[in-house]
Amino acid sequence: MRVAELSQRTGVPIPTIKYYLRAGLLPAGELTSPNQAHYGETHVHRLRLVRALVEVGGLSISATRAVLEKMRGADSQLHSIGKAQFALGPRTEPHEDAALADARTRVDELIERRGWLVRESNPARAGLAEALAHLTRLGHGDALPLLERYADAAQTLADPEVDLVLGRPNVDGMAETVVTLTVIGDALMSALRRMAQESEATRRLAD
Amino acid sequence: MRVAELSQRTGVPIPTIKYYLRAGLLPAGELTSPNQAHYGETHVHRLRLVRALVEVGGLSISATRAVLEKMRGADSQLHSIGKAQFALGPRTEPHEDAALADARTRVDELIERRGWLVRESNPARAGLAEALAHLTRLGHGDALPLLERYADAAQTLADPEVDLVLGRPNVDGMAETVVTLTVIGDALMSALRRMAQESEATRRLAD
Repeated sequence: MRVAELSQRTGVPIPTIKYYLRAGLLPAGELTSPNQAHYGETHVHRLRLVRALVEVGGLSISATRAVLEKMRGADSQLHSIGKAQFALGPRTEPHEDAALADARTRVDELIERRGWLVRESNPARAGLAEALAHLTRLGHGDALPLLERYADAAQTLADPEVDLVLGRPNVDGMAETVVTLTVIGDALMSALRRMAQESEATRRLAD
Repeated sequence: MRVAELSQRTGVPIPTIKYYLRAGLLPAGELTSPNQAHYGETHVHRLRLVRALVEVGGLSISATRAVLEKMRGADSQLHSIGKAQFALGPRTEPHEDAALADARTRVDELIERRGWLVRESNPARAGLAEALAHLTRLGHGDALPLLERYADAAQTLADPEVDLVLGRPNVDGMAETVVTLTVIGDALMSALRRMAQESEATRRLAD
């Protein structure tokens, strides 16, 4: 198909597609004439993946490129699938203070207590510590006990999620499922939590 | 305190603080001389809140301003607290296709089935539908049954979260807790899900 059809199928404007091509997020099409390229189903799929990462995951272009590279890098190495997930991690400069030091200890203790097998290189460790530190700094230290409830929920969800990943027929499929499920799962939980909170608050205030 | 101390206390660089002042995210300090302003604890707190919204929530400056305005707007009106949460909603242009139409039906059915009290104006409805549509477009339709598990988790978490919000002594405190808990809770769940997934996958692959 030509770029116009690729645009129509995916809802991505032609200038954006051209930008993704230049940025290396989308492989070049097959040139059918000096000014015309032909695109296939792999382009449709890749474009949808890029959109999910950018729109749902809020990833920058360079972060998206890094994730796609890690996915390719997984190749047939099962143990490296996690690196694609690690590349999704948020990157902020931590503000080193007592709240963050305390939060890091809480994260280590949580992992230890639950017997979770989490590599030191998993950026979610830092992400969790920073989120907890923000809570403390904002004076919501009384929300910290909720951490156990969130961890229970995460643990319960991991089981069917990993089922789904390991059920994919090959490592490439697994790597893509990890990335997709991580990013879209975050968005699902975020939306559902907001709706459940509104519902619960409305119910209580009506009483 | 002077701006240098405000910067030191919060870890926010002085140029960033000045930018937030110009952008209206931070109220002006009290002028003690034509070139010097004095800041108080409310500035420290506000700056921490802005950082949580920008760094953890990934909000843009204009989105942050909108949230802060809605928080102020809540005043003593309990029923308008939700508007602060609604302002946190993601804003993307939906790609209207069959996947999205189907996803919207799923969202309506989910809300109906669970008896959730969710206003039509809650942007989480659109956020959930778009996330589901991305899953379908990417060929992960077999992940859709996970939706019920995510909804169970969200519903379980809403109870202690609303407890915490309604336990605040005044409406301003409630509005801020809703905003903080929404944004930071997303980050907590995101990090915990990634760690729980890694742990579960590692355990299975070791077997």
